[in-house]
Amino acid sequence: MADNLTAVVYGPKDFRMEMWERPEPGEKEVQISVQNCGLCATDIEVYRHAEIKGLDIEMPWILGHEASGIITKLGKGVTSLKVGDRVATESLRICRHCDLCKSGHYNMCNVKNFGKCFTRYMVLPADFCHKLPDNVDFESAALAEPLCVAVRICTRSGIKLGDHVLILGSDLRPERLEHAKRLGADNTFLVKNQSIPELVDELVKLIGKKPDVVIECVGIKATVELGMKITKPTGCFLVAGVGTTSIEVPLFETVLNEIDIRGTAAYANHYPQALSLLSTGRVNMKSMITHRFPLEKVE
Amino acid sequence: MADNLTAVVYGPKDFRMEMWERPEPGEKEVQISVQNCGLCATDIEVYRHAEIKGLDIEMPWILGHEASGIITKLGKGVTSLKVGDRVATESLRICRHCDLCKSGHYNMCNVKNFGKCFTRYMVLPADFCHKLPDNVDFESAALAEPLCVAVRICTRSGIKLGDHVLILGSDLRPERLEHAKRLGADNTFLVKNQSIPELVDELVKLIGKKPDVVIECVGIKATVELGMKITKPTGCFLVAGVGTTSIEVPLFETVLNEIDIRGTAAYANHYPQALSLLSTGRVNMKSMITHRFPLEKVE
Amino acid sequence: MADNLTAVVYGPKDFRMEMWERPEPGEKEVQISVQNCGLCATDIEVYRHAEIKGLDIEMPWILGHEASGIITKLGKGVTSLKVGDRVATESLRICRHCDLCKSGHYNMCNVKNFGKCFTRYMVLPADFCHKLPDNVDFESAALAEPLCVAVRICTRSGIKLGDHVLILGSDLRPERLEHAKRLGADNTFLVKNQSIPELVDELVKLIGKKPDVVIECVGIKATVELGMKITKPTGCFLVAGVGTTSIEVPLFETVLNEIDIRGTAAYANHYPQALSLLSTGRVNMKSMITHRFPLEKVE
Amino acid sequence: MADNLTAVVYGPKDFRMEMWERPEPGEKEVQISVQNCGLCATDIEVYRHAEIKGLDIEMPWILGHEASGIITKLGKGVTSLKVGDRVATESLRICRHCDLCKSGHYNMCNVKNFGKCFTRYMVLPADFCHKLPDNVDFESAALAEPLCVAVRICTRSGIKLGDHVLILGSDLRPERLEHAKRLGADNTFLVKNQSIPELVDELVKLIGKKPDVVIECVGIKATVELGMKITKPTGCFLVAGVGTTSIEVPLFETVLNEIDIRGTAAYANHYPQALSLLSTGRVNMKSMITHRFPLEKVE
Repeated sequence: MADNLTAVVYGPKDFRMEMWERPEPGEKEVQISVQNCGLCATDIEVYRHAEIKGLDIEMPWILGHEASGIITKLGKGVTSLKVGDRVATESLRICRHCDLCKSGHYNMCNVKNFGKCFTRYMVLPADFCHKLPDNVDFESAALAEPLCVAVRICTRSGIKLGDHVLILGSDLRPERLEHAKRLGADNTFLVKNQSIPELVDELVKLIGKKPDVVIECVGIKATVELGMKITKPTGCFLVAGVGTTSIEVPLFETVLNEIDIRGTAAYANHYPQALSLLSTGRVNMKSMITHRFPLEKVE
Repeated sequence: MADNLTAVVYGPKDFRMEMWERPEPGEKEVQISVQNCGLCATDIEVYRHAEIKGLDIEMPWILGHEASGIITKLGKGVTSLKVGDRVATESLRICRHCDLCKSGHYNMCNVKNFGKCFTRYMVLPADFCHKLPDNVDFESAALAEPLCVAVRICTRSGIKLGDHVLILGSDLRPERLEHAKRLGADNTFLVKNQSIPELVDELVKLIGKKPDVVIECVGIKATVELGMKITKPTGCFLVAGVGTTSIEVPLFETVLNEIDIRGTAAYANHYPQALSLLSTGRVNMKSMITHRFPLEKVE
Repeated sequence: MADNLTAVVYGPKDFRMEMWERPEPGEKEVQISVQNCGLCATDIEVYRHAEIKGLDIEMPWILGHEASGIITKLGKGVTSLKVGDRVATESLRICRHCDLCKSGHYNMCNVKNFGKCFTRYMVLPADFCHKLPDNVDFESAALAEPLCVAVRICTRSGIKLGDHVLILGSDLRPERLEHAKRLGADNTFLVKNQSIPELVDELVKLIGKKPDVVIECVGIKATVELGMKITKPTGCFLVAGVGTTSIEVPLFETVLNEIDIRGTAAYANHYPQALSLLSTGRVNMKSMITHRFPLEKVE
Repeated sequence: MADNLTAVVYGPKDFRMEMWERPEPGEKEVQISVQNCGLCATDIEVYRHAEIKGLDIEMPWILGHEASGIITKLGKGVTSLKVGDRVATESLRICRHCDLCKSGHYNMCNVKNFGKCFTRYMVLPADFCHKLPDNVDFESAALAEPLCVAVRICTRSGIKLGDHVLILGSDLRPERLEHAKRLGADNTFLVKNQSIPELVDELVKLIGKKPDVVIECVGIKATVELGMKITKPTGCFLVAGVGTTSIEVPLFETVLNEIDIRGTAAYANHYPQALSLLSTGRVNMKSMITHRFPLEKVE
């Protein structure tokens, strides 16, 4: 039945809303009726440039990769789900046969493909559809995807109970910092035009010590340099932001202070944790939603 | 008794051989008659510039920090050693009270001081004098110090049984590579004028795969870039070389491939392992000795 | 001045309130005027039996090891504190010279000694007195000590964001479970007379899955067996309870399911984290206080 | 073609040599002509009892799980191998869809099935056939399987360069200990009728200290108790032996000395390391071969 409205990119800014066939689930797969789907900066990057830095993606491309839905059909051999189940959908595609998949790092699997959720019906492996706790709605569930990215950042950085964490973001607007505070930040700090040594001094005074973990979310020289200089000896400098492919790093600090620099790629095996966090009510993703619109108006 | 011949630096190239008093051991300290002491590039740096990059050191400075000796006197409260014991001497000074000392990272303690072994008699805390196994001689024991640096590199990089390890050194002379092979390297590779991508290709072919661990011992842009590009996803890029304080790093690989960049500072708690390795006979440090001379001729 | 009221145990149930001299601080030590001190089951054990299982302790013994106070005198070389500073006092004694101290595990240092805080004035190393954040009062600060034990349990068990944690306590009274819920437990479960397999089933249904981490706080066969059977494969079974010296363990699960069994001894380097947690207001130790009385009435 | 001689167990001691069809490779699978296959105690357990402790296995069962062979046919989509390739075959079966498979722990996947190599031709997933280095022959390659078990033991126990390791085996015959010494053991020790405390004393004297890692390969009360008592504080007690399902453990040591008890199940992702070790020539598996016979005579 060609009633499957789908948002497709054919090239840079060549965007079309098309009626496709509903895909049929194969073995160990399920068909999902998409209920909600977030719109991410990566989608806009594909829309504009028909490519994503660091990934090989093929046109035509269906946008959207932060989704939730209802199981509408089961493929052969699916026992973990039933029709009607409410799920969050994991949007990576993996081969399950390479060394990275088999060693628990499927986030780095060579299959350069993901998402494709701005559609009415999609098909996914059953194990990539995660049943929702009763108290988690479809909107929050769609945002389990970016929450997984955050869970991986925390996991990779080895944050422990009582650690001091500094997040270097790119938000220079006070209202964003206010929102961060409402979401649980103990302190916020608006950078003006201080030098790096001045920033180190002011931030250490604010925090009370050099932070155990610094999470860098920008990817420019200034934040990388600040991060390396302010992380405590033996601490972790977690790089989540990617601005340019190569960047000036004060590597000397790594050696003298044994600061670990770690990166983090998407997520792997983190949906159960993300849904648990949503279920406890202690993580509020919905406050981040700024607009709501139907699939027809996605462009 | 002022019979304690000592090699002292008073300033850049202001080097003097002096007769000092024998130092007396305080509580939990011992006096050692130095038997052998290695000469390290750091000593030459102090000799030339009266400073060490990244450390505050005070003149006058006694050179030498890779030593072995015989216990000649015990301070109050020393029970772990007796006069006549043969020991390797750990050359760091630590405060034992800061967070770094108390959390097992005394290698990063703020006490900027170490060594001072080019002398006939010196005093050290008893716990920094490590009794030699019977089959380890004084020359090998003096070289337990650089071996500790290597042990820490291996420990910090998380090398596991069966891992493929690539060491990026600065030796461009074939005879050095030959020596590395005699010491246990499975393969060696002499860099000519290949580009980084060519080097990645040739080395992966030689090794059979991207290495699990890359140990960078040079600290220049070319080796840092090569290391980041050739380390396998999820692998460790261990930075041991410090060329310049800030360096261009392809940080993108850290993020996309979750490569950990780790540094390593001196050593901490590694003497027992180093002496065990010497005792088994599987590590041969003496083959690295190129010259032998008495203390009188150290300059 | 012999005005230092002190609670001393001379033998089993041989308890005396005595007037001692105020102790003088030595090098790197401080004198503290004790403000609050918790009373722990271990104190009662010493009071009754004049011994603690697993530790060599010497009579006479001053009770109390969960304390806070005000700095009243500085020994030589103390720069991190000043007279009048409000502090939480760490009650372990350490040698700073053994392998365990130097590798960050001073909680297992052979110095079998700790506490001695049921007194008006005591002396401690300056680095074992932790300055209080302005919003942490003396009562909460005294309870930083048991909080440190909890911080270490969490650290040792490797709990990560989103993990499911099961705590096996010995409280069979519903009001205690209610209190646990008020303090943040998502669910509580009152054991009746179910078999181990029944408990596994009921708890897995309640939690939604096998827990990632199980924290055992009792130390009897039933809880050890339950813990081993319910921990998820690759999970951590953290043993904090010590009932008997030897216990029947279904070790088969360790092997087949690669469950790590880890213990935890007191704490080491955890005061900064504990005080941070108290300062954020997200950990409420004061709700655990059941009685308050002056030093004179400690018996 | 029914020329595929196969060793099948139908029940306890009901063993038959049968001519089966050659199996055809499916997608991402290959057909292998088996060249060598080890005979393991587990095979004998199946032969005798038609079951394996801790696993559900179904009759009829093909014996043998330590094999090497030549690729004779490629299934659809296989690009990593070609006909004629010499391979070591990994004998576990995995589902690739469960949480354990996806998190890198496929050794604990619920698929209770493995091996089936005492046959002329077998079919396996291509990624479970590991190409042999040129200098590794079929006999050694077949023994890569038990070597993988050893690699995982070392990986799980976190052995680091210079660590002291004590292996508690069940061999009470001096010639076995002699063989261990030839294979690289620094010392061996033949237990007579000492008590546990005596053994701890004698072994600590022999080793020079409490071992960092103890590997328990027997699974009886005496070795478990010895292991727990002799492992150094903060060390790892690795349990590889499984004698009985439940065992008396001095868990007190875990708590007071923070000794980690870890188990290890088969292996996962360790073939590349095992084949590398064989290729370097530093691990000699062939010296463990005691008998050689053709498939026809396997019973």
